[in-house]
Amino acid sequence: MTNWTLAARAAKMNSSAIREILKLTDRPGIISMAGGLPSPAGFPITAFTAACNAVMERDGAAALQYSTTEGFPALRQAIADFLPWDVNPEQVLITTGSQQALDLIAKIFMDKGSRILVEKPTYLGALQAFTPMEPVAVGVDSDDEGMLVEDFAAKVGTGADKARIAYVLPNFQNPTGRTMSEARRQALVEKAKELDIPLIEDNPYGDLWYEGEPPLPLAARNPEGVIYMGSFSKVLAPGLRVGFIVAPKSVYGKLTQAKQAADLHSPSFNQRVVAEVMKDGFLQRHIPTIRAMYKAQRDVMLVALEREMEGLDVSWTRPVGGMFLWVRLPKGMNAQDLLPEAVERGMAFVPGAPFFADEAEHNTLRLSYVTVSPAQINQGIAALAAAIRALQAK
Amino acid sequence: MTNWTLAARAAKMNSSAIREILKLTDRPGIISMAGGLPSPAGFPITAFTAACNAVMERDGAAALQYSTTEGFPALRQAIADFLPWDVNPEQVLITTGSQQALDLIAKIFMDKGSRILVEKPTYLGALQAFTPMEPVAVGVDSDDEGMLVEDFAAKVGTGADKARIAYVLPNFQNPTGRTMSEARRQALVEKAKELDIPLIEDNPYGDLWYEGEPPLPLAARNPEGVIYMGSFSKVLAPGLRVGFIVAPKSVYGKLTQAKQAADLHSPSFNQRVVAEVMKDGFLQRHIPTIRAMYKAQRDVMLVALEREMEGLDVSWTRPVGGMFLWVRLPKGMNAQDLLPEAVERGMAFVPGAPFFADEAEHNTLRLSYVTVSPAQINQGIAALAAAIRALQAK
Repeated sequence: MTNWTLAARAAKMNSSAIREILKLTDRPGIISMAGGLPSPAGFPITAFTAACNAVMERDGAAALQYSTTEGFPALRQAIADFLPWDVNPEQVLITTGSQQALDLIAKIFMDKGSRILVEKPTYLGALQAFTPMEPVAVGVDSDDEGMLVEDFAAKVGTGADKARIAYVLPNFQNPTGRTMSEARRQALVEKAKELDIPLIEDNPYGDLWYEGEPPLPLAARNPEGVIYMGSFSKVLAPGLRVGFIVAPKSVYGKLTQAKQAADLHSPSFNQRVVAEVMKDGFLQRHIPTIRAMYKAQRDVMLVALEREMEGLDVSWTRPVGGMFLWVRLPKGMNAQDLLPEAVERGMAFVPGAPFFADEAEHNTLRLSYVTVSPAQINQGIAALAAAIRALQAK
Repeated sequence: MTNWTLAARAAKMNSSAIREILKLTDRPGIISMAGGLPSPAGFPITAFTAACNAVMERDGAAALQYSTTEGFPALRQAIADFLPWDVNPEQVLITTGSQQALDLIAKIFMDKGSRILVEKPTYLGALQAFTPMEPVAVGVDSDDEGMLVEDFAAKVGTGADKARIAYVLPNFQNPTGRTMSEARRQALVEKAKELDIPLIEDNPYGDLWYEGEPPLPLAARNPEGVIYMGSFSKVLAPGLRVGFIVAPKSVYGKLTQAKQAADLHSPSFNQRVVAEVMKDGFLQRHIPTIRAMYKAQRDVMLVALEREMEGLDVSWTRPVGGMFLWVRLPKGMNAQDLLPEAVERGMAFVPGAPFFADEAEHNTLRLSYVTVSPAQINQGIAALAAAIRALQAK
């Protein structure tokens, strides 16, 4: 029996609470609204197959060889062209999914004990990516429009305890589905500039709008003050693990060095395939089909919630894009206690508590509406309501 | 102008010295023996194209979807079957290239200031991967057979300063091309077991033997005491970024959690394509063609060195596999000073100093013989000899 000494950080690392829940709930017959997967009905399999063949035929050897850490130049250019502000391709760093972007950001910004600011609630995977660098994540009070600027300023800290970054997800946030308003964006960017705090803007869902484009990204308002993260996981396919960072020159080099140490570069082949798929405006034609599909599913869920939650003291968000909706249960009810009742009745969700860096709100839960059929949504929401009634009756 | 505070580790991070040299030397007309790229002539483009099409046709949606952190089960099984000892597929963790394995190992084993042991010299990319976790890397005296067991034991340290890991590359080591002997392997494994130090065995080149299989891996001798790293970069193609770890149960879970935080999982598509290519014994048919190609190139280089270095006080290794050969220049000559003389004469190499964790030997350099033609090898080695003579004459 070995008795090896591990790093202190290893004791803090855990498997994602969501992935653990999925192991319990991903069984036949359960209608799962717990996952965070995009709908495979939106994967452009034909276009990908054609792109794979084109890349292998034209550039097979280059696609299979080592390549630069920064990424495939044509893909960096395509990303710069696609984004809604003036981006220099030299600011674009290709990452192995946007999860890797979080890892790199944690590495260059966070020492043990460093204060970082996040929304209440925030993306669980970000907390998980930051944890190995042992920061102290502080939740900033947030409302339907995102982080409250007053509380952001109040929690920034000073001197050695000044926050290293503030991490925000302005569009159709995971987990709440909420979107940061135009006014809030502008105010947050200005306050962050005044306090000289880097904003980390995570935008995997921004293209999945249903009722009009969201306001301009934070990065477009102050490119020198914001590190922007994007992903092809929700508009093309997550299985390729292609994401990107747009970073100001001041930190681009350090992020690239961190990436080189972490995996040398993202797969050359995948980068070329994504660049090939993006040619001739494919995304502009493809994304509207995903939007239409997800919007229809959201509509079914909103109607089902109105119908089934009648008379229960339950409220929920009305996302205008993305994949998730956030439910607030009656005060005092714990979503963790509700989960077995729901699973017993044939549906699953993710309790909200793991999405809070501190001071969890236990009466919250997240629902995904994108991988379940309209019939399943109706059946699942009815089961959820029945579970709430059953727990109340206990 | 922003004035952001970065993590202390960021100041220690640097771009790979090799990549910086490549920027200087990768220009038209230069015969580069500096790179570490495998020969694209060995990439099985036809087999890959067929595998891409088979995977997309049969399992397109799954190949483009998120998947488990541990990796694609059929690939983990194929790896376990391919390895020359009894491996349980549940011990196999798929990584985004074996560079990521180094990052994960650093994260779970190294605190700031932790002592770690490496060979003299060692793989530069490993030092680069470990640096962000801020360990103190200590070079262990090494000879033609690898790490000297006596010096390993002497440098292990005690108490809080006891080494967290010892990192070794037993087969056709990068940068020296040397191979650890049967006796040395056995002695090192036994000493590491006695001292309870995890051995990290990095084996990207092990299948590229020219004159018979190398001795059994360290992991085969004590599976509970060794973390084994493998890669498809040298036997299939590096551009897919598919590598793996075989880890004892005691640390498998922590490595998986670190991986989940770093990039969720390696690309589903790439894992399935590699599994598809590996079917029906493809590797067993394909690898001999790479061996034959590299052996012929090595032979040309050894003959050229014998011829051109005549009368110069220069020695070199005679690798029995892999991609690299290590040259020792006359005492007192600095390979860094030699590089501009060599480039001026039309060839490039990598100076040896960056491969040492401490106490660099400045009169060493690394040559790769796998991406240059026989004619270029002859011309390049003649240019190197001319550069040595020119520097001596100065």
